[in-house]
Amino acid sequence: MKVKFELQNLDSTTKARAGILHTPHGDVPTPIFMAVGTAGSVKGIELRLLEETGVRIILGNTYHLALRPGEGLIKQLGGLHKFTGWRGPMLTDSGGFQVFSLAQRTKITEEGARFQSHIDGRRMMFSPERSIEIQEALGSDIAMCMDHVLGLPNTDKKIYDAMSRTVRWAQRCKEFASREDQSLFGIVQGGLNRDFRLECVERLTAMDFEGYAVGGLSVGEPPEMMYATMDYTVEALPQDKPRYLMGVGTPADLLEGIERGIDMFDCVMPTRNGRNAMAFTAHGRMRLRNFKYFDDERPLEEDCPCPACKRSRAYLRHLFIAREILGPILLSIHNITYYERLIAQARAAILANRFEAFKRECYEGWAEENE
Amino acid sequence: MKVKFELQNLDSTTKARAGILHTPHGDVPTPIFMAVGTAGSVKGIELRLLEETGVRIILGNTYHLALRPGEGLIKQLGGLHKFTGWRGPMLTDSGGFQVFSLAQRTKITEEGARFQSHIDGRRMMFSPERSIEIQEALGSDIAMCMDHVLGLPNTDKKIYDAMSRTVRWAQRCKEFASREDQSLFGIVQGGLNRDFRLECVERLTAMDFEGYAVGGLSVGEPPEMMYATMDYTVEALPQDKPRYLMGVGTPADLLEGIERGIDMFDCVMPTRNGRNAMAFTAHGRMRLRNFKYFDDERPLEEDCPCPACKRSRAYLRHLFIAREILGPILLSIHNITYYERLIAQARAAILANRFEAFKRECYEGWAEENE
Repeated sequence: MKVKFELQNLDSTTKARAGILHTPHGDVPTPIFMAVGTAGSVKGIELRLLEETGVRIILGNTYHLALRPGEGLIKQLGGLHKFTGWRGPMLTDSGGFQVFSLAQRTKITEEGARFQSHIDGRRMMFSPERSIEIQEALGSDIAMCMDHVLGLPNTDKKIYDAMSRTVRWAQRCKEFASREDQSLFGIVQGGLNRDFRLECVERLTAMDFEGYAVGGLSVGEPPEMMYATMDYTVEALPQDKPRYLMGVGTPADLLEGIERGIDMFDCVMPTRNGRNAMAFTAHGRMRLRNFKYFDDERPLEEDCPCPACKRSRAYLRHLFIAREILGPILLSIHNITYYERLIAQARAAILANRFEAFKRECYEGWAEENE
Repeated sequence: MKVKFELQNLDSTTKARAGILHTPHGDVPTPIFMAVGTAGSVKGIELRLLEETGVRIILGNTYHLALRPGEGLIKQLGGLHKFTGWRGPMLTDSGGFQVFSLAQRTKITEEGARFQSHIDGRRMMFSPERSIEIQEALGSDIAMCMDHVLGLPNTDKKIYDAMSRTVRWAQRCKEFASREDQSLFGIVQGGLNRDFRLECVERLTAMDFEGYAVGGLSVGEPPEMMYATMDYTVEALPQDKPRYLMGVGTPADLLEGIERGIDMFDCVMPTRNGRNAMAFTAHGRMRLRNFKYFDDERPLEEDCPCPACKRSRAYLRHLFIAREILGPILLSIHNITYYERLIAQARAAILANRFEAFKRECYEGWAEENE
């Protein structure tokens, strides 16, 4: 089966929407935040604990998995679900962003991207067809078309060329894709240029993908420009398909995206920042190495059900100071739990037609504790 | 309350014994393996997963916790149980082994041990009274008397002096200890010298501790000499008190200790080796980085209920090769689960008066897969 998006409610005063994404591995309530399981694990979090964070869908990275252990092994062992033990829905990215951000000596041609592995310098090639081939071997529920990602700012010509190539590559991905149980999302590029973005939307929607992603944001531009770009881009996307804002972002970014009609998000921020002793909470960010938490008996958040919040801030600080790996583990779990609770609350607010008030309350809470 | 040892069965052909250790935080079936929670966490294992390994009692390190975060903070926050969230029984060591093995510039006098912290070089002093003071602040169920640990081989004079000082320190610990809900174990020293060991046992048992530990083993001597020392030392200890072999050891060491009448063990081996990609199994040790596991679909052990064994060896190998911290986490969990299953099976064998056959079967299994 292909994924199917069921719209449940449009918020009465914003463009926020609540729905259900039906996938071969189960239903996902939207809006939703996907935890990032780069190389076959959400870093430091055993599945049992991951499930308790409220995570419903995991993102796997095509670039990382193709390099190590190789998609051939994963396919031989029954696919990414069986390999990792995660039974719920999975989305794989295309590798397009990693050949831009992580690989070495990347050269983009119409054929695809030539680059060297950031691990061992091995020369490799990702084409749209190769990206789909890998994603089909991994067996995710949702595959992404390979896109041409650029850093911002950039020249109009380069941005237009990359957008146009992304569209041509999307066509090649669609023609190459063959799995009945895997859906394909197109990725909208076009930098911060309204005309380019709208042209990209028009050309992609003509191909009728199962969902659409907004790509090429959060790559160096100020947040207001990202939000402005979302305004007109998301507006132009079809209502009956899921919309995914790739690689974004902070808790505020999630709410800004939701307000503009985004349904799906992913970001390494909760796990990466958690490993570095930063906790996201309803009352702002906390840096747990700070001496002010030395003897703080309180949990990070009073009402959070996660295992980190069964301990004191003083204990969590101690774990980081003593370099006990339980510190990064617990804060990663807390941060994912925080993201999932935030987005579940946002969903409830949309269903109650009070998203605007909910967003305001969140901003007020975050302002309480400044770093 | 003080801990109380209830003897359930003496194996019919060996000195192995099965019992129950009643503690203020619950009962512990013996023989038992204590997981090491050095600095307030069993490295990498969240409590929820730790409980599922079968662990019943945790060891905390007085030296580490006194250095960081300091026992004063832990006491202020309600003791080590509340600080860490572990609700079951806990034992704390005395710090005697760490000032010997880990601290810098250690000088032993009759008063105690002067040394510099291995973390920041701070000058510190552990006396028998100071060790008890720290352990009472931590609030463990079982505290250990501070002992004078030596490396082997060593001169008879040094070994006798250290043994004799250990006895005098035990007397000071006993006189200083004041908590009604904490029990105190004496530690038998005396190197590999039968006379010294037996004299130590005689002098310690005259003081009537709630339990006795065999210390100063596994410090450089061959296993056979350790086993021989245990033969006469354990034999001399009273039947109605628990016996603890400190810091030992391999799965084989556990069985050899049990056969000689030991009830309690602790060792960092399952977690430390797990972090370094070594798995203990009923069919021997496995090094998971080995290429032979590249596409091995089997779990580490078919009948193991741990989360690592819900995955393939190929997946576990991938985690280590890709440096995903889930690898060390899963193998630490598996190894503790293996130790706890082994010792639970040993207990069942003792209750069935077939420990000797059980031990032989274990050795046969371990011989199957050589590294």
